[in-house]
Amino acid sequence: MDDRRLLDSIRGIIGEQETGDDCLVLDISDRYLVVSTDMLHETTDFPTGMTDYEIGWMAAAVTLSDIASMAADPTDLLMAVGLDSPDRLAGITRGAAAACRSVGARVSGGDIDRHDELTIVSTGIGFVDWDRILRRSGARPGDIVCVTGMPGRAEAGLLGDERFRTHLVTPVPRVAEGRAFSEGGATSMMDLSDGIALSLYDLSRASGVGFSLDPGLFPLIPDLPPEAAETLFLYGGGDFELIATVPQERLPIAGVDATPIGIVTADREILVRGEVLPARGYMHRWE
Amino acid sequence: MDDRRLLDSIRGIIGEQETGDDCLVLDISDRYLVVSTDMLHETTDFPTGMTDYEIGWMAAAVTLSDIASMAADPTDLLMAVGLDSPDRLAGITRGAAAACRSVGARVSGGDIDRHDELTIVSTGIGFVDWDRILRRSGARPGDIVCVTGMPGRAEAGLLGDERFRTHLVTPVPRVAEGRAFSEGGATSMMDLSDGIALSLYDLSRASGVGFSLDPGLFPLIPDLPPEAAETLFLYGGGDFELIATVPQERLPIAGVDATPIGIVTADREILVRGEVLPARGYMHRWE
Repeated sequence: MDDRRLLDSIRGIIGEQETGDDCLVLDISDRYLVVSTDMLHETTDFPTGMTDYEIGWMAAAVTLSDIASMAADPTDLLMAVGLDSPDRLAGITRGAAAACRSVGARVSGGDIDRHDELTIVSTGIGFVDWDRILRRSGARPGDIVCVTGMPGRAEAGLLGDERFRTHLVTPVPRVAEGRAFSEGGATSMMDLSDGIALSLYDLSRASGVGFSLDPGLFPLIPDLPPEAAETLFLYGGGDFELIATVPQERLPIAGVDATPIGIVTADREILVRGEVLPARGYMHRWE
Repeated sequence: MDDRRLLDSIRGIIGEQETGDDCLVLDISDRYLVVSTDMLHETTDFPTGMTDYEIGWMAAAVTLSDIASMAADPTDLLMAVGLDSPDRLAGITRGAAAACRSVGARVSGGDIDRHDELTIVSTGIGFVDWDRILRRSGARPGDIVCVTGMPGRAEAGLLGDERFRTHLVTPVPRVAEGRAFSEGGATSMMDLSDGIALSLYDLSRASGVGFSLDPGLFPLIPDLPPEAAETLFLYGGGDFELIATVPQERLPIAGVDATPIGIVTADREILVRGEVLPARGYMHRWE
């Protein structure tokens, strides 16, 4: 069983809307409060060799990226840290605080506990005006699919490509880009934490649409065999770039380094070169 | 090293105010948003023999109690669950949802992950009017210290007293009582998760005051040797009752089953029968 199927098992308990987006969205009378929480464990989520500072940065960044993915401005982060050794807390907190500062947020609370394996749960809080929020739903046939940056770099870094170690261990949440997509008229958005393929299936499910991608447009990592570069691009996880759908007439969007990679279709299939894209990428396995 | 000393080590990194209360407090233009997060692990935090439903209830309740302790109304709970087995998620979620419903809140999101040891981080969200929030600071000499319920029952349950198993495994967050204390003019408040003694030291630090307790007033568990009952009352953890300070002329407070147990003093000492109360109770140990 994977995360998505496991999540299906509790939709009936806590509701479809509550399991739909990356963040909780609360209407607070003049705008939306956006909240997201992420759990990371040392052995499964943090590549070996990371410093405590980098671990703290990454734990904060994955959650700040969720906030960014809804076009919200993150303001605060709560960190619950299960520590295998108390010495690690300061380095982790420094890294998390730096990641927060990089997007104008702050670490503002949390909890500490003892644990055999280092465990960090970060909860991010942000705000977005009512008419500015972007969700996974909202993509319309004919919209252009765009990605920020060069997806695949984090996975390449994980596989040992030293050029991209920083993309892997200290990813920068795309807060400004998320806001720019919203101001530029994007219709749906999410972040790429689990890779492009899985994200497209999530967008497809939420928006009731399909996608047709044009491999000739992919911003691939240079100096790699094309097939390897395309695999990293489509299935690599951990980039925390944004993927958004934008009406064709609104492109290009000011302030975003975004590359069109395909078009939204009506038929719910996700196609590359006319073939159905496999739904694979980063998934926790449960068996 | 214990939690409080460990927390001291990061005050310089994230700030004194951010480590002062149980919750993050955000001014959202017409009232306060209150957020709190708690991490619980199976071996250290959940007594053996608990069902998954009870584990989910408890994980939610400890965080809802933090929200209640600031006189706020909890609305939402995010649950990050590190599962040793995917089968457990449904029971845990049902328990958490029931605990939320008991105080008018809901489970509205979260994250799931695989973990060798069951780990739950619950993040609660609540709201409170500007002039209604209660903090650990604010107690004034002459105020009366009051507690809800009968502190010590959860610890008694942990020690095998079957009368109080439900107080241990499905504690009810004192949301209505927190609100009533606020409306009744209380000056400071917190919950009793770690026992009365440690909570009084927290209130003393935050408010810059001391306390003198009158053992003759303690609402002790019946049918126990008096000394054992008093030990449970002062040092037992896990009750999630509230402790508040109230100006004498405002007592009794309508709608709260609260017992006066002593008085706030100016000199920062915490005294019972003229002796300094030991600062012990529930604390994680780090060495």
